[in-house]
Amino acid sequence: MTTLLKNCAYVVTLDADASVLRDVDVLIDAGRIARIIDARDPLAEPIETLDETIDCSRRVVMPGLVNLHTHLAMTLLRGLAEDVDLDGFLTRVWAAEGAIMDAATVRLGTSLGALESLRAGTTMAADMYFHPDAGRAGAAEVGLRLATGPVLFDGPGPDGLAWERRLADVEAWPALARTLGGPDAPDLACPHSTYLVSPGHLADLGQVVRVWRRPLIHTHVSETAAENAQVIAQTGRRPVQVLADAGLLDGTIGLVFGHGVHLDLASDPALIGGHATIAHCPASNLKLASGALHWAASVSAGLALGIGTDGTSSSNDLDLWVAMRLAAMLARLTSGRPDAVTSVDILRAATQVGARALGMGDRLGSVEVGKDADLLLIDLDAEHLTPVHDVHALLVFAAGRSDVSDVFVAGERVIADRVSTTVDAEALRAQSRERAAAAVEAWP
Amino acid sequence: MTTLLKNCAYVVTLDADASVLRDVDVLIDAGRIARIIDARDPLAEPIETLDETIDCSRRVVMPGLVNLHTHLAMTLLRGLAEDVDLDGFLTRVWAAEGAIMDAATVRLGTSLGALESLRAGTTMAADMYFHPDAGRAGAAEVGLRLATGPVLFDGPGPDGLAWERRLADVEAWPALARTLGGPDAPDLACPHSTYLVSPGHLADLGQVVRVWRRPLIHTHVSETAAENAQVIAQTGRRPVQVLADAGLLDGTIGLVFGHGVHLDLASDPALIGGHATIAHCPASNLKLASGALHWAASVSAGLALGIGTDGTSSSNDLDLWVAMRLAAMLARLTSGRPDAVTSVDILRAATQVGARALGMGDRLGSVEVGKDADLLLIDLDAEHLTPVHDVHALLVFAAGRSDVSDVFVAGERVIADRVSTTVDAEALRAQSRERAAAAVEAWP
Repeated sequence: MTTLLKNCAYVVTLDADASVLRDVDVLIDAGRIARIIDARDPLAEPIETLDETIDCSRRVVMPGLVNLHTHLAMTLLRGLAEDVDLDGFLTRVWAAEGAIMDAATVRLGTSLGALESLRAGTTMAADMYFHPDAGRAGAAEVGLRLATGPVLFDGPGPDGLAWERRLADVEAWPALARTLGGPDAPDLACPHSTYLVSPGHLADLGQVVRVWRRPLIHTHVSETAAENAQVIAQTGRRPVQVLADAGLLDGTIGLVFGHGVHLDLASDPALIGGHATIAHCPASNLKLASGALHWAASVSAGLALGIGTDGTSSSNDLDLWVAMRLAAMLARLTSGRPDAVTSVDILRAATQVGARALGMGDRLGSVEVGKDADLLLIDLDAEHLTPVHDVHALLVFAAGRSDVSDVFVAGERVIADRVSTTVDAEALRAQSRERAAAAVEAWP
Repeated sequence: MTTLLKNCAYVVTLDADASVLRDVDVLIDAGRIARIIDARDPLAEPIETLDETIDCSRRVVMPGLVNLHTHLAMTLLRGLAEDVDLDGFLTRVWAAEGAIMDAATVRLGTSLGALESLRAGTTMAADMYFHPDAGRAGAAEVGLRLATGPVLFDGPGPDGLAWERRLADVEAWPALARTLGGPDAPDLACPHSTYLVSPGHLADLGQVVRVWRRPLIHTHVSETAAENAQVIAQTGRRPVQVLADAGLLDGTIGLVFGHGVHLDLASDPALIGGHATIAHCPASNLKLASGALHWAASVSAGLALGIGTDGTSSSNDLDLWVAMRLAAMLARLTSGRPDAVTSVDILRAATQVGARALGMGDRLGSVEVGKDADLLLIDLDAEHLTPVHDVHALLVFAAGRSDVSDVFVAGERVIADRVSTTVDAEALRAQSRERAAAAVEAWP
């Protein structure tokens, strides 16, 4: 399959120089970015055997977005716990989850969230939820790269599994995941947090996941001040210290820390040692009044920051454009500086930092020859994108999910002219509405 | 002209009880909301002589949004001054304005901004810009209610007018504005700020505007800490005290205060005495690192809060959905409370509080029989609006500009199935791109 993105108005490469290319053709071949050609060069080698040509003369081409922390199946619970903090939120949501979240429902909710994500330009997401096999299959059907894997906590949880079974599931996950189809996606082990998984269990998990070809752990860390206090009460240590003492920060495992709002910038970065990436989730943190991550101070302290949405029952959508804009704005507020972060840095956080955190930095996160073709086309024919004085600022501060006209994942055009090519979106929404009604009935 | 909104899935009335009506028909007749009828009531009096029926079985009907502070013509300058604070922003933008912002360009830029606004569900906006007659005409052509009027400052400004001429323009404005067409819109006098208009001039302006049938003043107040310091250095008083001493807060004039981030909540509300409404512009304030308005504390202190976007060269779009979401989130951050403001309060701020501030609270701001038909249809057929557990939260935290399928202003369907019925949008965007290129050439 070869696809030519013809006469691209702007290619926002997010390469090392943040180059913006004008009037070029981008050739997608066998899932990769095969060539980038000056459209005005009469001497360019001609392209043969094209399957598809797309006029991009009013389009921006850019890398797909990476949502570094979410819970897609919870999309069915959107708006079910309003005006409460994290504790109130968890109490209310867990009741509904216990009542309806079987494997079939997780698959349905993950498909719904995956389609919402893809339409909004997210091509890969790091998930954490029960029944990860159902989630991976639901995302695969829609065409999203879903980095996921078994979720772990000490107690039985809505899925009723014992700890030993969870560990066994981690051991078996990479082999199982390969059978679930869909675009290539990283495998994760997802211990919920240091308040729901004991230090001893975390150390055990490290032993199991270290055997994976590409060991990755996705967990919640220092989301709220109350979490820090609880972990200190339980263990005598801060969350990052607990993870370090369990051996998880020894450099053999890549980690994604959801939230990280209340990390101690004086001590935690040294313990992290570059082995974890923070998934900054400004919409969730603000909505639940969890606090505000300090972007500039975090970067100065040596932390790597990606961007996530969290689940829709906290944030309440899966829109990384809103998350990027919030991240850029919060960075200014927390520092008092309008130049606290550039639009290029925000775009990189939402693309290549996320890709790198999930072990795919060599294949994803920029528009460069040889990389996988996870690409977005942004439709410039909108008043709110007129005129274009600064294309990076336009993307961060004016563009939004509805401007994404086409989405490619590994070269497959999964959204074409705003229509899913993989699933019947109307049927998926109807099924989701029906199943979500059951959550309301289960409501305490 | 009679239009029936048939089988509305949800009518978010924002009436006194924040009622949400299900499965009703809404009849628009002669520009007003004529009837709201239970769609399932077999005894309801039949409706005759319908011109148009719109199926709303997958739509939310809600009041049009009111953008309480903007500068629409500056839409041509979107993205022209990135990563700078308010001072740096003004310095850079004023150079471009001086070079290109003649009356024809103001008209073009205002049309562009008006169309962006309407598409995003804004049916009325409070503007402030040079050549207000050109602005009003540009908005009228597109179909937006543009509250505007002469802008005033002591110096000559890009339009080169002397103070006496500005005052004369204020005197003449209501009569001139009536000749400019478009939907009914309030008249404003727009002294820029207490740092660019002297106390004596403000008092003179009060005398002139007080003669208007409905005296309204729109000005910038306490946007930044630096502004407060400058006004204190110039006058020995805070901005609100200056306005009070000039007699403008005596209750004979309605006022809109753009920003109000750095009001002194201990003393300013008493001086304001309920005669001014704050136009909270969170996107602009965050982008320019101006600071964060404290919503809950401001409300507790007795202030009325509407919502605005500011101009696109600071914020960088005219999206009140983003502004509502930011306002709701900032309210939580500044108070530390997830229940700092309800979604209903945010929706009211962006509708009826703005309408009331502009003297049209009896006619606009809720879906009730007898009010003007400034209405939005929100298309629920989107993954990010599935499911609907809480329709108010859905609108504030998940909906966005692209979900607005239809917009009525005074009963006229100005956006129909996402298409402008008033202007050639493609031509307007093309002209805007061309004229904006001149701003780049004028760039110092």
